[in-house]
Amino acid sequence: MTLPRGPTTVTRVLNFFNAFKRVLVGRPFRSDKLAHTLLPKRIALPIFASDALSSVAYAPDEILLTLALAGVAAVTVAPWVGAAVIVVLITVVASYRQNVHAYPSGGGDYEIATTNLGRFAGLTVASALLVDYVLTVAVSMSSAANYLATAVPGMHGTQALIAVVGVVVLALVNLRGIREAGSVFAVPTYIFMVCILGMTAVGLFQAVSGNLGRAASADFQIVPAPGFDQGLVGLAGGFLLLRAFSSGAAALTGVEAISNGVPNFRKPKSKNAATTLLMLGVLAACMMAGILYLANATGVHMAADPAGEFRVNGHPLPADYVQNPTISQIAATVFGAGSVPFFIIVAATGVILVFASNTAFNGFPVLASILAQDGYLPRQLRTRGDRLAFSNGVLALAAGALVLIIAFNADVTKLIQLYIVGVFISFTASQLGMIRHWTSLLRTVKERGVKFRMIRSRVINSLGFLMTLTVLIIVLVTKFEQGAWIALLAMVVLFLIMWSIRAHYVKVAKELAVDGDAAPRALPARIHALILVSHVRKPVLRALAFARASRPSTLEAITVDLDPVETEQTIADWDRLDMPVPLTVLASPYRETLMPIMNHIKAMRADSPRDLIVVYIPEYVVGKWWEQLVHNQTALRIKTRLHFEPGVMVASVPWQLKSSEDSQKYQELS
Amino acid sequence: MTLPRGPTTVTRVLNFFNAFKRVLVGRPFRSDKLAHTLLPKRIALPIFASDALSSVAYAPDEILLTLALAGVAAVTVAPWVGAAVIVVLITVVASYRQNVHAYPSGGGDYEIATTNLGRFAGLTVASALLVDYVLTVAVSMSSAANYLATAVPGMHGTQALIAVVGVVVLALVNLRGIREAGSVFAVPTYIFMVCILGMTAVGLFQAVSGNLGRAASADFQIVPAPGFDQGLVGLAGGFLLLRAFSSGAAALTGVEAISNGVPNFRKPKSKNAATTLLMLGVLAACMMAGILYLANATGVHMAADPAGEFRVNGHPLPADYVQNPTISQIAATVFGAGSVPFFIIVAATGVILVFASNTAFNGFPVLASILAQDGYLPRQLRTRGDRLAFSNGVLALAAGALVLIIAFNADVTKLIQLYIVGVFISFTASQLGMIRHWTSLLRTVKERGVKFRMIRSRVINSLGFLMTLTVLIIVLVTKFEQGAWIALLAMVVLFLIMWSIRAHYVKVAKELAVDGDAAPRALPARIHALILVSHVRKPVLRALAFARASRPSTLEAITVDLDPVETEQTIADWDRLDMPVPLTVLASPYRETLMPIMNHIKAMRADSPRDLIVVYIPEYVVGKWWEQLVHNQTALRIKTRLHFEPGVMVASVPWQLKSSEDSQKYQELS
Repeated sequence: MTLPRGPTTVTRVLNFFNAFKRVLVGRPFRSDKLAHTLLPKRIALPIFASDALSSVAYAPDEILLTLALAGVAAVTVAPWVGAAVIVVLITVVASYRQNVHAYPSGGGDYEIATTNLGRFAGLTVASALLVDYVLTVAVSMSSAANYLATAVPGMHGTQALIAVVGVVVLALVNLRGIREAGSVFAVPTYIFMVCILGMTAVGLFQAVSGNLGRAASADFQIVPAPGFDQGLVGLAGGFLLLRAFSSGAAALTGVEAISNGVPNFRKPKSKNAATTLLMLGVLAACMMAGILYLANATGVHMAADPAGEFRVNGHPLPADYVQNPTISQIAATVFGAGSVPFFIIVAATGVILVFASNTAFNGFPVLASILAQDGYLPRQLRTRGDRLAFSNGVLALAAGALVLIIAFNADVTKLIQLYIVGVFISFTASQLGMIRHWTSLLRTVKERGVKFRMIRSRVINSLGFLMTLTVLIIVLVTKFEQGAWIALLAMVVLFLIMWSIRAHYVKVAKELAVDGDAAPRALPARIHALILVSHVRKPVLRALAFARASRPSTLEAITVDLDPVETEQTIADWDRLDMPVPLTVLASPYRETLMPIMNHIKAMRADSPRDLIVVYIPEYVVGKWWEQLVHNQTALRIKTRLHFEPGVMVASVPWQLKSSEDSQKYQELS
Repeated sequence: MTLPRGPTTVTRVLNFFNAFKRVLVGRPFRSDKLAHTLLPKRIALPIFASDALSSVAYAPDEILLTLALAGVAAVTVAPWVGAAVIVVLITVVASYRQNVHAYPSGGGDYEIATTNLGRFAGLTVASALLVDYVLTVAVSMSSAANYLATAVPGMHGTQALIAVVGVVVLALVNLRGIREAGSVFAVPTYIFMVCILGMTAVGLFQAVSGNLGRAASADFQIVPAPGFDQGLVGLAGGFLLLRAFSSGAAALTGVEAISNGVPNFRKPKSKNAATTLLMLGVLAACMMAGILYLANATGVHMAADPAGEFRVNGHPLPADYVQNPTISQIAATVFGAGSVPFFIIVAATGVILVFASNTAFNGFPVLASILAQDGYLPRQLRTRGDRLAFSNGVLALAAGALVLIIAFNADVTKLIQLYIVGVFISFTASQLGMIRHWTSLLRTVKERGVKFRMIRSRVINSLGFLMTLTVLIIVLVTKFEQGAWIALLAMVVLFLIMWSIRAHYVKVAKELAVDGDAAPRALPARIHALILVSHVRKPVLRALAFARASRPSTLEAITVDLDPVETEQTIADWDRLDMPVPLTVLASPYRETLMPIMNHIKAMRADSPRDLIVVYIPEYVVGKWWEQLVHNQTALRIKTRLHFEPGVMVASVPWQLKSSEDSQKYQELS
């Protein structure tokens, strides 16, 4: 059984990919350039805030369409749901300002939980955050695709494809490095803020002057879902309110991004980060309030299933009805559909959503690299990629997001059911960790002023803990069946994988630690050299020369008799060329190469177990991947199997074919 | 950039697969058992004949539905088309009886063409045959799925899935080896012959006694395709006749199977093979004639698109109408639908079609192995697999057939357009080769009786050549646009691949041939040993011990400074353990392992280009595939890159972790 695709081929393909990467990603950065990527507040705000701010693009929609299940009257409650979200937002921002001051190294929730609550809590937070980063990319990119379809109606129905392309492009941008990304991201984020706040101002002015129009969907009647004929009354109504709140709470993701990113700020890092966090909180609250107020004032109606729930004069909507997002509907009402401001607002919203995914592309690889440093992930994720970005983390994040987008066909309403669970697990654990942090710190401090500030911080973090725990419970209860179980399952799986990777590394380190055992240091008594021969060609001569140069105790060439005619030829060549070592022919009743060689070596080992056997394997080095397919497949299998044999060392003697020379020059450039 | 899937993992997965294979495929055969697999005529006939005989299951259908395009009257011409096919069949059988006598070693068309017409013709025949073997499997298995759907109506619509499962099962059967397959195949083939000939006899008797019924589709009116309102008149009508003939010519595939398989016959091989071939020709002709006579007598109507072409009293057929194959319609008419004989006939036909694919599973791997021996395919296809079957060829054939079945959704009418081209290319070239063979042989022979027999043979082969060339042209002209171009394209691609593989092997053999050049034999002046160190652990100690045992001229340990803290630790450990060689720390401005090592080695090479550098790499050998993912990734990249450096040898020093021991025991069993 031979695979047509040899392992070394994988590497060759990678080499080709490396060169391709250079073209897409640019030349590597040196380590000492790292310091240059520190961010001023005016650039840090758009980078870290885009996630939290962009959620106004979909969170109000989710509130409205959830409430719509209980009919038209229920939708008017939306501003109050929004107000509850804003209260939570303000509490969380206040809490995280304490985190930023307490941990200026920017450990983030993972470090806070690990330090104060132990490894188990820390890894729980890490798993939760990794899953939520993936969801941030999937949700934001899917929503961005929706906005693009709003502006360009011909694209309606291809949202999943658009979102996939978006994720791929964003991954490439991030493989180029954070600094360049930063400056690219600053301008559109500011444009988005101006757009939303400006639209709110104009809308407010129109409302005061009595000129505010009605949204296109304002006159739709809504068929309540079964059980909600009476609106938001009873247990079911309360549950629906909480579900709407849970969806709105998506506005809170991204708040923790700043606390993870403190080391990226210019000095004084903590103070700058805390200020940026406050600005973020105020901006997000204003924008959320503005959108929900205008949606209510213009009468925007949203439905999860417009054809099923909406009626116009008692008739269902036409089959080709396309439901535009809340922001587009408001923009169309305030400025007129198809007007220049309308297109600017829709475009700015789409762009900010794309950039929101970037927050995850900043956060995920950093967290993965910290986890790899702590032994929870494979070591190769630890090293920074060659453009100061953590390439492996970027690729893993993009892959995860692509899976989600394709699996849910870029449906934001479905994806949002998986979302936020992770962030609120992280919030809650982090706030609990902060409470313990202040409590243990308070024991060491005597000065009254300091003590007072610590107690005040602890009160704020305690409030934050209670608030986030409540929201977490609400989110879990209302979303579990809707899809949150998938996110929780992913977290548990991630947790178990990372836990066992660390257990494995610890076990291996223990097994391999240098101790009193003298065996590994003992020089082997004698060295037996074996040379594998298939045809008598130049590579065999070189292998023989190399083997002889190391002056082994014994030296033997072996060949396996697969085909009598070829074996005769090999023996004849061996004699003709007057080779200075004996050639042993191994019989192979099953016409197979591996087993005769292994049996021969085992017999040698049994004779002299304290000796070292060095197996010299001549290998052809070729330049093209397909050449690899037709060479060395057997050598590779032999090498792999020999590795399992103690006291055997494999020496690969490469012979560079002419075709390999060009390929090597090519690699030098890459 | 590191792939999460390390090359060695591929091998590990393979090892697991090997064990799995043992369970499915059984224990290996020894070479000396090969002689036992010789076949008596009564078993050779069913094995080699099933392909040719089984085509009566679909060839009449294709003749009927092609003619139906010209309306009801045209369908009555079907027996005459069948008669033309039978004439060709008899000619080809007569010709191949000459081949069998001339080449008792069973070279087959490839060898005949290569020997008499040269490498180019030979490889053309080989490409054509390989493609047609794949099509045999795809067509037969798709048709078998149709018959299963006839017997079990609930399965209608899942034919592609059934065909896929069938190919997989058949591949497994063939991986077990030809002999067991042979005895399994004999009985059902005989049952099929008895069924079809018996049904013909009963039908004939009913017709003579005036009791033969009418088929269910006998009263369907047919809407002629545009341009065929007048039936088979004019150029278009003639073309349609030829197209029907081309489809019917599928009955000829498999005739060459016996001439390829002569060495599998018992002695006297040639005579037995020729007799079997004659029996095959007579049987195939009788069955074809019988089915087409009964189809005509019972009025079976077939259509490529039953809903579009058929009318009952002027109305189209209901949407859920399922068109049964000709043999089932005849069986239902002669014996009654749902009767016991009906089910036996349908089942026997389905089974024979599955077994027909087996002819390809016999032929393809043999041909691939011959081609690999001649250097046209990678060497690993050359060796017989460990169950005396050529495992790699079986797998390649199954993969190709699966692609076709899935791409064409198991539609026999579409697949048959690609079919036969290859076989007739092979027929034509082989007959031309035979003509040259007799011509050159005639020059060497004086005896009159021998001379006369040779001239007679040459006349028969010449007739065969003219006949097959005519059919080839008809097939090409009538089927090219319908899909034959795909098969031709595949042949051209295969040809080019095989041609360039051989060119590559020839080039490499020339480059590597031992000549006057003394360089490969020259012992290097001195040996410099380098040991790669990442952490100071037991594997490093062992690598050091192995390196010291070979007493190199110089010995140096090197480590790459990826992380200052870890490097400090490594240096401290090195000093603490009092290691007997100096440790060199290489700076890595790009936090990358490969480049500093390569630069260091290049500098050493520049200093002393005639010396040998041996790089000792400590490697962890682990037991589970996922453990492989978290180890050795960097070692692998370093090894691959070092292979491109002349004068550098890589020595892998394996350290078997405890987890590898179980895994090795497992491998011993496999």
